[in-house]
Amino acid sequence: MSIVDYLGIELPIIQSPMAGVQDHRLAVAVSEAGGLGSIPCAMLGADAIAAELSAFRALSDQPVNVNFFCHQVPQADARRETGWRNALQPYLNEYGVSTIPPGPDRNPFDQAAATAIAPFRPEVVSFHFGLPSAELIHRVKSWGARVMSSATTVDEARWLEAHGADIVIAQGYEAGGHRGMFLSDDLTTQMGTMSLLPQIVRSVRIPVVAAGGIADERGVKAALAMGATAVQMGTAFLLCDEAGTSAIHRRALKSADSSHTAVTNLFSGRPARSIVNRVIRELGPISELAPAFPLAATSIAALRKAAERHNSGDFTPLWSGQNTSGCSEVSARELTLALAGALEPA
Amino acid sequence: MSIVDYLGIELPIIQSPMAGVQDHRLAVAVSEAGGLGSIPCAMLGADAIAAELSAFRALSDQPVNVNFFCHQVPQADARRETGWRNALQPYLNEYGVSTIPPGPDRNPFDQAAATAIAPFRPEVVSFHFGLPSAELIHRVKSWGARVMSSATTVDEARWLEAHGADIVIAQGYEAGGHRGMFLSDDLTTQMGTMSLLPQIVRSVRIPVVAAGGIADERGVKAALAMGATAVQMGTAFLLCDEAGTSAIHRRALKSADSSHTAVTNLFSGRPARSIVNRVIRELGPISELAPAFPLAATSIAALRKAAERHNSGDFTPLWSGQNTSGCSEVSARELTLALAGALEPA
Repeated sequence: MSIVDYLGIELPIIQSPMAGVQDHRLAVAVSEAGGLGSIPCAMLGADAIAAELSAFRALSDQPVNVNFFCHQVPQADARRETGWRNALQPYLNEYGVSTIPPGPDRNPFDQAAATAIAPFRPEVVSFHFGLPSAELIHRVKSWGARVMSSATTVDEARWLEAHGADIVIAQGYEAGGHRGMFLSDDLTTQMGTMSLLPQIVRSVRIPVVAAGGIADERGVKAALAMGATAVQMGTAFLLCDEAGTSAIHRRALKSADSSHTAVTNLFSGRPARSIVNRVIRELGPISELAPAFPLAATSIAALRKAAERHNSGDFTPLWSGQNTSGCSEVSARELTLALAGALEPA
Repeated sequence: MSIVDYLGIELPIIQSPMAGVQDHRLAVAVSEAGGLGSIPCAMLGADAIAAELSAFRALSDQPVNVNFFCHQVPQADARRETGWRNALQPYLNEYGVSTIPPGPDRNPFDQAAATAIAPFRPEVVSFHFGLPSAELIHRVKSWGARVMSSATTVDEARWLEAHGADIVIAQGYEAGGHRGMFLSDDLTTQMGTMSLLPQIVRSVRIPVVAAGGIADERGVKAALAMGATAVQMGTAFLLCDEAGTSAIHRRALKSADSSHTAVTNLFSGRPARSIVNRVIRELGPISELAPAFPLAATSIAALRKAAERHNSGDFTPLWSGQNTSGCSEVSARELTLALAGALEPA
């Protein structure tokens, strides 16, 4: 069965959930165009989640994907926090930041979040960093939702299939934002899409979605040729009218800077791909000092806020994949249709 | 014009030149099957080069590619060499290696090499690490040869086009062996094939060959869908009957170890992808101590030799791309035809 039939969508295009840069508006536009729109819930509380889903359902009767993180919440570690604060101190001084407010909330999926989405019976619930408990998966599936999660290695794909995922996303090294890696923290295990996708396709029996480096209709066609049943794309949607991408982030995506990205742990404590900016250049993309996810975010978020007030993206997580050539300032509907345009008639 | 017409080959399959693991026999088998066979000359002197080409021409009247490196020869640096030797000393002690013979020769392409190949008028001459001097390129082209080189970034592809390359290889991050990078030594610039290929295709006007992570007919089809005019594949050929791959290297490729590769500078001083083995695990894949290419090879080659005598691949460069799923113990003819089998009739 094709994923198009499996999910009740018309086009094999899934818009990547991108926490912090989009809400239901982008999801509605993509789902209304025939793809699968996604609402990132990783940084939202229960009320905000319900509000987002409520807004989506009011505007569209098409399927929707809601996305959550399912990391382990780390113990705060005062010594590590101090080391990190010290590394950032010259920048905090430069911007005159003396108090650090609490960082952005990133709570793993739990019963409260499940309760928030339950009334809306989302067609797809997707996860990053593995899967939640069997109990939570069971609850989600009881509504008829399909469960989807990202694999960055063949082992992770097999693990996800064995632990109840209905669909696995082969997240290639090229992808923007957080690496979904959860069985290893060794970055050398991370594979490019061209290598990862076919190896996952031959290793699991559930449908495989391709993600990472895909920017246009040819890329979509190529991913389908390698056995993907759909593609998930984020970066290409970042300049769309319906995306909430900040002016600073949009400017970076449109500049020559966007040709150079790096996987960095500076912004959250977990490896994620961003356009290379000052803090990545000066501290190096991977710092041993960064506290565990999501604790690293606290200090740097304060710095980001101060720098952005000066119209600087030097400390902003400029999430982007390695291929920004598909970014264009059009409606998400137009982009979704263009991406699917090269497909052969079914 | 398709590269098939451009090079006079029947199938858009180029066998990657793989110094140290193959000679004219693999090239003959691939060219006779309709692809483009390649003879790696980077580690050969003028006589050996002539002998290889002579052997090829005696066995096949099909086109051939001869491949050279074109790095800058580094100054020997005694302090750096000592640091490197110290890092390896525990291993040298373990294997009782007390004298280090000269390392493997890796000379850049020069007039002597050009003189060696001139009588054979190879149809394609390819380079790694950039291009040789304009004078040498002119000489090669005067025989009617096409000049091909690898780009690992869009900038490198543009540079190669501007400096006389007729064909550019988009070498994705997944590829085995040495990264062709030559404008930057920053590994964060390296892109996956899925991202690099389409961006190079839209940035140059010369034909683009895709390399990295491609292992089967679906991968070939996908690369062509993204605008490649041919694919270059190495890893898939490593187990072929005609390859000179060592027993230790073959064993690693067939084992579960092959699912984990890393880009490492330990074996030569330049980043290259190998299956992760003991020395990579223990020293880390990238060492600041490794002398400049190709000087790092000297000490580790002695260690490799000693370890291999004990049937150990702990210090062997186990070159491999990220996708070994296409490796099979068949003739290179059978593999070449299978790779091209999925192509639509022209």
